[in-house]
Amino acid sequence: MNFSSKLIENAVSAFATLPGIGKKSALRMVLHLLKESPADVERFAQAIQQMRSEIKFCKTCFNVSDTDSCGICSNTYRNQKQVCIVESIRDVMAIENTGQYNGVYHVLGGIISPIDGIGPDELTIDALVKRVNETGIEEVIMALNPTVEGDTTIFYISKQLKELPVRITSIARGVAFGGELEYVDEFTLARSLATRLPYENYLVNK
Amino acid sequence: MNFSSKLIENAVSAFATLPGIGKKSALRMVLHLLKESPADVERFAQAIQQMRSEIKFCKTCFNVSDTDSCGICSNTYRNQKQVCIVESIRDVMAIENTGQYNGVYHVLGGIISPIDGIGPDELTIDALVKRVNETGIEEVIMALNPTVEGDTTIFYISKQLKELPVRITSIARGVAFGGELEYVDEFTLARSLATRLPYENYLVNK
Repeated sequence: MNFSSKLIENAVSAFATLPGIGKKSALRMVLHLLKESPADVERFAQAIQQMRSEIKFCKTCFNVSDTDSCGICSNTYRNQKQVCIVESIRDVMAIENTGQYNGVYHVLGGIISPIDGIGPDELTIDALVKRVNETGIEEVIMALNPTVEGDTTIFYISKQLKELPVRITSIARGVAFGGELEYVDEFTLARSLATRLPYENYLVNK
Repeated sequence: MNFSSKLIENAVSAFATLPGIGKKSALRMVLHLLKESPADVERFAQAIQQMRSEIKFCKTCFNVSDTDSCGICSNTYRNQKQVCIVESIRDVMAIENTGQYNGVYHVLGGIISPIDGIGPDELTIDALVKRVNETGIEEVIMALNPTVEGDTTIFYISKQLKELPVRITSIARGVAFGGELEYVDEFTLARSLATRLPYENYLVNK
């Protein structure tokens, strides 16, 4: 494409590196910013740059944070003995948005995936074992995606924690609310039958 | 949504101001940038900021440019006597991408639209009349969108240029290549019949 300006071309190329953004969407964004005042665009660029350069990762749970210890780990009203293991900070946000979880987190920073060259050492599993050992954590809840890699990671972690006095649980797999039985895959449906609950518990969960 | 970091929240809000980007896509972009190195993100932010602060508009045709006169206006191989009137720089890019046009442009910066409060004075029409008057332009090609506002603008400009020795033309309206006759609206089809071409011309145009 001919942008008749190197400056525009650079900005379009920058936006086009973002996930899900092609050259055409990138150009649309650039033309939008071109209509904004230079001061507004400077604020826009600064918010992004500042986010990357000043962001910290919590020393306890590896969640993103503006300070050394994140708001969840330093919140004394939360149950610090219950730790939810997640793959990424995106999963922390998803669970926090439910408003139903009162424990703390541990962000692995990925899952074990030999095909992508990610082994246990690339993740924060050692820190988790140390954390469970030192702070007397009572329950570890595995909230990983139900894939081969996720299951491998759960298996690995549970082996590492085997000797420690901690209860290991996993989030329930089953038919999603709003899902229709006939469209659910056989594996999930079979699992949801096998792990069926007494009706009273079903009501509580809902 | 709970981002557990003010820095992330600011960056997400910044991205969410872009056209076609909601909070979820914005978060996806921010998490992508979080994985990049701070230096890369700084380059990203700088490309955007520089684009807005250093961009110039060509003094002749009002196209975007890195210099005072754009590459098209200063190109002596192009026909400076043939001017294509377009609404925005996006249209310049679209026509340049065809690789079929060898004249120059005049970017109006919008079209006459009383409902949006845009009158002739907000556009670069006065500069166009002056340009036609002073530089002996031979042909003015109207390449505006076929809307009521576009037609109004064409009518207004042609009235302003009436006294000047300049030929006024408009891009052809008709059935698009790849379009199917049965799905074309009646107005376009009727127009394409009324402005039919000798077969030899059709071949040349193709």
